[in-house]
Amino acid sequence: MSNDAFVPHPDRLLPADPAVRDIARDLYTLAKDQPIVSPHGHVDPRLLLEDEPFRDPTSLFITPDHYVNRLMHARGVDLAELGVGQGPLDEKASRRAWHLLAEHWHAYAGTPSRYWMEHEFAEVFGLETVLNPRTADAMYDALAEKLAQPEFRPRALFDQFKIEVMATTDDPVDDLAPHDALAADESFGGRVIPTFRPDKYLEAGRPDFSALTDALGEAAGIDTGTYDGYHEAMRARRLYFRDHGAVSSDHAHIDPGTARLSDEDARRLYTAARDGAIGADEAVALRRHLLADQARLAAEDGLVMTIHPAVDRNHSDAVFKKFGPDVGFDIPVAVDYVHHLRPMLNDVGHHPNFRTVLFTIDETVLSREIAPLAGVYPSVYAGAPWWFIDAPDAILRYRRAVSETIGYSRTSGFIDDTRAFCSIPARHDMSRRLDASHLAGLVAEHRMRLEDAQELVVTLPDQQPREVFRLGAAGEKNS
Amino acid sequence: MSNDAFVPHPDRLLPADPAVRDIARDLYTLAKDQPIVSPHGHVDPRLLLEDEPFRDPTSLFITPDHYVNRLMHARGVDLAELGVGQGPLDEKASRRAWHLLAEHWHAYAGTPSRYWMEHEFAEVFGLETVLNPRTADAMYDALAEKLAQPEFRPRALFDQFKIEVMATTDDPVDDLAPHDALAADESFGGRVIPTFRPDKYLEAGRPDFSALTDALGEAAGIDTGTYDGYHEAMRARRLYFRDHGAVSSDHAHIDPGTARLSDEDARRLYTAARDGAIGADEAVALRRHLLADQARLAAEDGLVMTIHPAVDRNHSDAVFKKFGPDVGFDIPVAVDYVHHLRPMLNDVGHHPNFRTVLFTIDETVLSREIAPLAGVYPSVYAGAPWWFIDAPDAILRYRRAVSETIGYSRTSGFIDDTRAFCSIPARHDMSRRLDASHLAGLVAEHRMRLEDAQELVVTLPDQQPREVFRLGAAGEKNS
Amino acid sequence: MSNDAFVPHPDRLLPADPAVRDIARDLYTLAKDQPIVSPHGHVDPRLLLEDEPFRDPTSLFITPDHYVNRLMHARGVDLAELGVGQGPLDEKASRRAWHLLAEHWHAYAGTPSRYWMEHEFAEVFGLETVLNPRTADAMYDALAEKLAQPEFRPRALFDQFKIEVMATTDDPVDDLAPHDALAADESFGGRVIPTFRPDKYLEAGRPDFSALTDALGEAAGIDTGTYDGYHEAMRARRLYFRDHGAVSSDHAHIDPGTARLSDEDARRLYTAARDGAIGADEAVALRRHLLADQARLAAEDGLVMTIHPAVDRNHSDAVFKKFGPDVGFDIPVAVDYVHHLRPMLNDVGHHPNFRTVLFTIDETVLSREIAPLAGVYPSVYAGAPWWFIDAPDAILRYRRAVSETIGYSRTSGFIDDTRAFCSIPARHDMSRRLDASHLAGLVAEHRMRLEDAQELVVTLPDQQPREVFRLGAAGEKNS
Repeated sequence: MSNDAFVPHPDRLLPADPAVRDIARDLYTLAKDQPIVSPHGHVDPRLLLEDEPFRDPTSLFITPDHYVNRLMHARGVDLAELGVGQGPLDEKASRRAWHLLAEHWHAYAGTPSRYWMEHEFAEVFGLETVLNPRTADAMYDALAEKLAQPEFRPRALFDQFKIEVMATTDDPVDDLAPHDALAADESFGGRVIPTFRPDKYLEAGRPDFSALTDALGEAAGIDTGTYDGYHEAMRARRLYFRDHGAVSSDHAHIDPGTARLSDEDARRLYTAARDGAIGADEAVALRRHLLADQARLAAEDGLVMTIHPAVDRNHSDAVFKKFGPDVGFDIPVAVDYVHHLRPMLNDVGHHPNFRTVLFTIDETVLSREIAPLAGVYPSVYAGAPWWFIDAPDAILRYRRAVSETIGYSRTSGFIDDTRAFCSIPARHDMSRRLDASHLAGLVAEHRMRLEDAQELVVTLPDQQPREVFRLGAAGEKNS
Repeated sequence: MSNDAFVPHPDRLLPADPAVRDIARDLYTLAKDQPIVSPHGHVDPRLLLEDEPFRDPTSLFITPDHYVNRLMHARGVDLAELGVGQGPLDEKASRRAWHLLAEHWHAYAGTPSRYWMEHEFAEVFGLETVLNPRTADAMYDALAEKLAQPEFRPRALFDQFKIEVMATTDDPVDDLAPHDALAADESFGGRVIPTFRPDKYLEAGRPDFSALTDALGEAAGIDTGTYDGYHEAMRARRLYFRDHGAVSSDHAHIDPGTARLSDEDARRLYTAARDGAIGADEAVALRRHLLADQARLAAEDGLVMTIHPAVDRNHSDAVFKKFGPDVGFDIPVAVDYVHHLRPMLNDVGHHPNFRTVLFTIDETVLSREIAPLAGVYPSVYAGAPWWFIDAPDAILRYRRAVSETIGYSRTSGFIDDTRAFCSIPARHDMSRRLDASHLAGLVAEHRMRLEDAQELVVTLPDQQPREVFRLGAAGEKNS
Repeated sequence: MSNDAFVPHPDRLLPADPAVRDIARDLYTLAKDQPIVSPHGHVDPRLLLEDEPFRDPTSLFITPDHYVNRLMHARGVDLAELGVGQGPLDEKASRRAWHLLAEHWHAYAGTPSRYWMEHEFAEVFGLETVLNPRTADAMYDALAEKLAQPEFRPRALFDQFKIEVMATTDDPVDDLAPHDALAADESFGGRVIPTFRPDKYLEAGRPDFSALTDALGEAAGIDTGTYDGYHEAMRARRLYFRDHGAVSSDHAHIDPGTARLSDEDARRLYTAARDGAIGADEAVALRRHLLADQARLAAEDGLVMTIHPAVDRNHSDAVFKKFGPDVGFDIPVAVDYVHHLRPMLNDVGHHPNFRTVLFTIDETVLSREIAPLAGVYPSVYAGAPWWFIDAPDAILRYRRAVSETIGYSRTSGFIDDTRAFCSIPARHDMSRRLDASHLAGLVAEHRMRLEDAQELVVTLPDQQPREVFRLGAAGEKNS
């Protein structure tokens, strides 16, 4: 049927006005073939180490992608039917999940999830039909056939995508063996680096805080029975990560508080937390102190501190109990960066070795807090739009909200932050199209010279994140 | 004078870019003649029951419309001169108020109030001049003459407007006799349904809480001397409303808190509130518990729960004392949906019978909270822009803020929320034009297929609110 | 080199769409030659009194402009190298600072600072090259040469800029001698008026509160040892300012709280503050009471009360210690106007003599709070975008956020709020271009008649601020 034919338009996301579009297209052309630098994301390094074929379309496109699952769930689909928390689906269940996606595909019209997947279908897998119940089986079959071919294995795609650097997100106790093996593997030329993500070891109110800190101590070979030991263990594990290629640590708490306690109070509360005898307010106070400690350690070891705060995780108890975390029930809340970071920035904000990148889903802080901070502290950068706002209109809002205060040099460069490996090129391409569109608007309104826009559109995807994340120049394996 | 001639342009609100406007015009053409479904508003059902001619232009367009009065008041006009709190104005005073509007009309340029009224003047009353001091008398006379004609009586306009469903807003103790009479009146084909609005019966700190709950008990025939009796009375009145056609309840408190108390505390605080012996914080705690109870009852009876929170009502004590509520001195404040709804959504958010629609004037929660919630909980929908933000730019911001997370299927459809009967078609038409404009922009930027936009623009005004509010298919009198 | 040539485009900031641009250009043409009315800013009156030549390009364009310095500082430049806190730079250091600006100029692409300076270079100084390391010396020399000429002295520029009224910002204890001398100087025809800025005399928690209030008492000739004396001294100094031409007072605290204390508590806390024995919470409570007092005094003396709240000043202790205030380390925070102003507006909000203009950097309150307040209280106006959001996209957001609720008549008119004298015409011109662009969009979308836009674009820069700030008609020296 002819109305099932579909190829993403080459000018997609470019402004509608013909004169502006022409400028945008020229700018995009300069940017589109730049390599991919991905300094923060959630792909598992074993995907590349093992380089096994992807199992089937559902486990590639649906099950692990909470952006996709959550909207179907809102529309009445049981997460279990999509494979969430089910272990590998058999062929029938996998195909059934694919059909569910096809049935609900019209409800994704206008969403970035659909945009990315359509990009992937067309540009990675060469499929030129729209997904719907009529085409679902044929698309499933075509994808499954491709996935069985060597050129669609993870490493081949990594190369096809032109990924030069890809950061993963890792537990502080992880031995990073997959990273080491990948680095040692001469048949793999990519740079896959770990990221130190210690959140749960700072959440002093968790019932398993004692067990967690024990594990941290074990990994570090340092007794974490006291606060001082814990601090040494953190220092050691950060250095371990840095020695294994990490360039950043990542921090995601309900608020970005960094108020310090006295040493005495920190020691006392740490012990209480280990004993399960810490009050709720005390646990918050200790967590903020421990985050301030991470900043001090960052000034020592130079890991760039990325902050992704203010998400009320696992909002539905029932869903959390049944399916665990990261299944779409994480809801953003308001954030206050100015007060919460003041202690930390007074402590290390002028330290030449310290650097932090501030992310938000709460758009209100973009023009009010993040841009003013990143426009004056040498250590602060404005992170790219994250999660729900990594989407076309929101990305344009972000550029308009921050660039009038900080231009472009104090921004992080694009961060894909994805678990969905195949969406990486689609997301980076979307960002480049939108930067081209944004800059073209400025050029068309004579707010920026074309030469400046041409330079920016080239440096933003590549040189900018390399500089911000201390990744070194292209081709370097370690900074 | 030739510069007094004025007819709203047929392409008004459509995008300026010619190519995008062409797409938008085609989309709008598909939507413009759809019937009107109005699941939430404030028109008095007796207007249609009695079907009396409207008294005069001032009482139709000015006196009851706080959108219109407030701006004149800010510009120095006494609300009394506009008829607020005055009882029916005589001919001279009514004409004087009309002249005041004409004198200040230039100050409404660019506001939705002027846009709606100009739509009404032209499309309902066939007037083709702009309002100003020169034209005021002629327009007053022309309107007065029309209002005396049978085709401008409320029922005739109801038909002319193609309203298929119109919800009113009603007190829980109301016997809904006007609704019954309308439903029984074979000469009237429209569907006019009540809405259960129990706010004041939940405000435990009100000095008249005892009297209010007494009245509730009387209406229900249940002793409300205890919390348990109150709860039963609420259940009974909700069922009474449902049996008389209601499909939703409406809730407007200063915050949308839903934290539950223990049964014991609820009983104790309810008794204290009846005795006028409840503290301010306790009254808030009890009100939140009672709202959580409404959600439980909604899961039983299936009334859709609409939430319109976070307005600081009657901000000026002096104006409230002189003119009462709803005269323009209600000012929005920040809202937090994520924390406040968490208890309720954990209680009934996955119940198949429960459904809630979240409205806001605080635009910050659109992308941050409402879209993420509506995009994962099967029971949550994002309400259309409300009150001050039911306006063209704000409506476009709304679409851009929520559709990237939830598309269109998790939105409420347009809600006019008006007291101004004649503004209903103008408001719905404005919404359709803006949806067409928004979708045309996506099509022109190749972010949505034309076919998808064509389907959406047709379903959004009609099928969407019917589904969200469980109104049944077109033609059904009850769902 | 040809690519160093640069002249700002005559159509800059006008919309890209050709048809809309044509409308915008016509509207801008109506507005561009209007005189400048600047009712709030930070230029030193002695600049005009003494009328000395500007020293050099660096001390004119860089050192005093924290907008410019802060971004260079974030990019690694020491503020001292830019002359901050250094006293006059010698020729070599001044030229070195200028080169630093040239080296970092590309990073300002898209910022209003660069836009304004490019406007100044071209339209004030006739320079037709872009600033970069190649052109830096030539531009420095050309500027230095111009600055030595009589037509580039402050008074000549004041005339060239067509400034009719310019307000300064002044300390309550200032004797305003420069203003008096300027007013008495028959060779100077401009109107330069003081503004009463009493912030620090309200900050009861300051360690120097006793010394400050002593100085206030001395200036007023009234013993400020008691609260009542302080209040009388404030009244006297406000009247002194009014008698010397002031039309407004300005207030910038971390929140706009106006809750009143009992007289007894006010007296007690004032004494405690003088004694350095006030607690932190009490100091906040007293400050809010004192701000409420300012509003009462404003209702007496008719000074318009401008409020610029919610900036966390001197965020970096180390920078404050080294360089003092106003060097770029002031970061905005969230504001709540509705609750904080409720006491004040209930006290004097309906007083015919009282008037307040609400400014914000927190854009969230524009549609939520400021527009709803300014659209109903006769005493409240919505201030123009301020500081970080006095920038093209933010100004357009402001218009779109407030005009749908209040149109244009309840807005302040443009406020430049600048310390950078030469940026005044650039900033006012930017505002006029953006108003023309905004209104042209409404005209093109048939949301406003061309006649209405033509009237607005002319009244907004001139008549509007004259009315709001009670400046009298053009040509009047005092209102």
